[in-house]
Amino acid sequence: MTEPATPYLRVDVARLHRTITGTAARAAGAGVSLRPHVKTHKCVEIARLQLDAGAIGITVATVGEAEVFARHGFDDVFVAYPLWLTDEAAARLREVAQHARLAIGVDSTEAAARAGSLLEGSGVEALVEVDCGRHRSGVRPSDAGALAVAAEEAGLPVRGVFTFPGHSYAPDALASSAEDESRALTAAVASLRESGLEPDVVSGGSTPSLAHSDTALLTELRPGVYVFGDAQQWELGTMAPSDIALTCRATVVSHAGGRLVLDSGSKALGADRAPYATGGGRLLDHPDARIVLLSEHHAVVDLGGAPLPPIGSRVDVVPNHVCNAVNLTDTLWADDGDALVPWSVSARGRNT
Amino acid sequence: MTEPATPYLRVDVARLHRTITGTAARAAGAGVSLRPHVKTHKCVEIARLQLDAGAIGITVATVGEAEVFARHGFDDVFVAYPLWLTDEAAARLREVAQHARLAIGVDSTEAAARAGSLLEGSGVEALVEVDCGRHRSGVRPSDAGALAVAAEEAGLPVRGVFTFPGHSYAPDALASSAEDESRALTAAVASLRESGLEPDVVSGGSTPSLAHSDTALLTELRPGVYVFGDAQQWELGTMAPSDIALTCRATVVSHAGGRLVLDSGSKALGADRAPYATGGGRLLDHPDARIVLLSEHHAVVDLGGAPLPPIGSRVDVVPNHVCNAVNLTDTLWADDGDALVPWSVSARGRNT
Repeated sequence: MTEPATPYLRVDVARLHRTITGTAARAAGAGVSLRPHVKTHKCVEIARLQLDAGAIGITVATVGEAEVFARHGFDDVFVAYPLWLTDEAAARLREVAQHARLAIGVDSTEAAARAGSLLEGSGVEALVEVDCGRHRSGVRPSDAGALAVAAEEAGLPVRGVFTFPGHSYAPDALASSAEDESRALTAAVASLRESGLEPDVVSGGSTPSLAHSDTALLTELRPGVYVFGDAQQWELGTMAPSDIALTCRATVVSHAGGRLVLDSGSKALGADRAPYATGGGRLLDHPDARIVLLSEHHAVVDLGGAPLPPIGSRVDVVPNHVCNAVNLTDTLWADDGDALVPWSVSARGRNT
Repeated sequence: MTEPATPYLRVDVARLHRTITGTAARAAGAGVSLRPHVKTHKCVEIARLQLDAGAIGITVATVGEAEVFARHGFDDVFVAYPLWLTDEAAARLREVAQHARLAIGVDSTEAAARAGSLLEGSGVEALVEVDCGRHRSGVRPSDAGALAVAAEEAGLPVRGVFTFPGHSYAPDALASSAEDESRALTAAVASLRESGLEPDVVSGGSTPSLAHSDTALLTELRPGVYVFGDAQQWELGTMAPSDIALTCRATVVSHAGGRLVLDSGSKALGADRAPYATGGGRLLDHPDARIVLLSEHHAVVDLGGAPLPPIGSRVDVVPNHVCNAVNLTDTLWADDGDALVPWSVSARGRNT
């Protein structure tokens, strides 16, 4: 097959299928619904594979992502974000709600009141976001009931509660973050009940903590990254290199200084580098290699003394954070073993 | 004026003009040519302002960027990158060379031989890249002459030498990196002369080191970031907040945990965080504020005890690294004081 010019993102379709069906089977076995976060791939073809494998709907982060997927026939969408609605955003959500069952996140009485007013009669529901330890957005679990009551009084029906245990992105926090999630959601459910409300949905999950999720409590899981994996999951120990389904194909452009210089810079891989990351990304077939310097169009690799692949040859780079890598390109190249098929990153750049 | 939905990138046109003309005047005063790196803005309107102010041509990083600007009439383009040419890339460069004076970077005999063969008769020239201390790409200065001879023998005419003093991106390295640049380029010029070649162009420059450039030696400067500035320049002390011409307008979506939560995440700002950065970005009008947590759609801000702007209000965020922020959007909104005019990021995502 003729390869595109590098750098480009390549999806290993066999690995993708294996992960999607395996994760769906584990969720089904645990009796919990799967609502994958499609911000990771922003790709209609992949979201369809997830639904075909049993996902009940999709999670998105923005109104723009909701629009793209609703337009492609996805009819159950949760915007897992504490939206502040302008009149224009509310009109766009009303349009989406004509075609899909739709819910949004809420974590303040101000935003709930505004959404209740601007979305009245649209059928859009809300989930109250609680903070379980990431300390990003979300109310304290004990405040969930009061916010839910305020939302309902403002005309915004509350479907349940959700959280994101994002502090799972740290070594040794995979299990403890899931315990935090369970504790926070238990308290949030109790808070709703004390306020006279019964949540239909108790939603959580993240790729690092997924195996530790309290599936007796949670009714749905919203992992995103699991679908591809990345160097963060590799380094956290949650996915093996042999599970990683997306790489950035890169060309060796130089051997300057006795090191490998690749054309996969931060404009192809993203510039994410978590505190626990061992470099700017990994090489799939060179586990000892590290990207020691990453600029916009250069990745300088220390190969740990191994022989340098020749100038002009190609290697597979694993981005640190796949969500940001995907958002940099318009096309994923799906490799099914026979051909490279272009899949559109339909929701790329849909930040609003 | 009606504002677009947040997050969006806003350009202060008055500041942009002031920086472009000021930098051009200083270069002219020092008798050195300016060839701005347009990877920073990827925007035809801004490149035209730079040429109007006296720039002799433009610098790009990729064949795709060269194509976009050549198509818009830019007729003097330098691809400051050690390209490894496929047949397809060579064909694209030949097409660009029909419309523009064109040069590419070279830092290995392998790439020089290939370019000489594939670009024969096209008129495309080369500049030999030397490493002056960034340790990214580029040959040792003393090897520049041998590589230049090899390139010319392969049929690739050598216009001169270039370097990028990227190690200027560190506190206290602004002047020393320019000294390294001067030393390396002096040695490279000597190496070419020893090989019987006389360079027409001696090219260098970076925004942090710009004021320290050896303009007696250098014939051209290639800064990129100077046009907008960003939090890196602010924190390096090379640009004041009042010079910063690009911000990300963001909405306060939450006060979770008593902090400011903005909708300008890493998918709007980029995830760059240099070792010297004090956070994930700055707030233009709150110099004591720091982005203490940045995820894809959340920027959590510690305001240092100042009162929180209300939920639903908007603030101006300064990205850490403006080049990567611009590459995430298709549109810059140019604010001339009267209206917001959309400027296309025409070369966004042109990595190949």
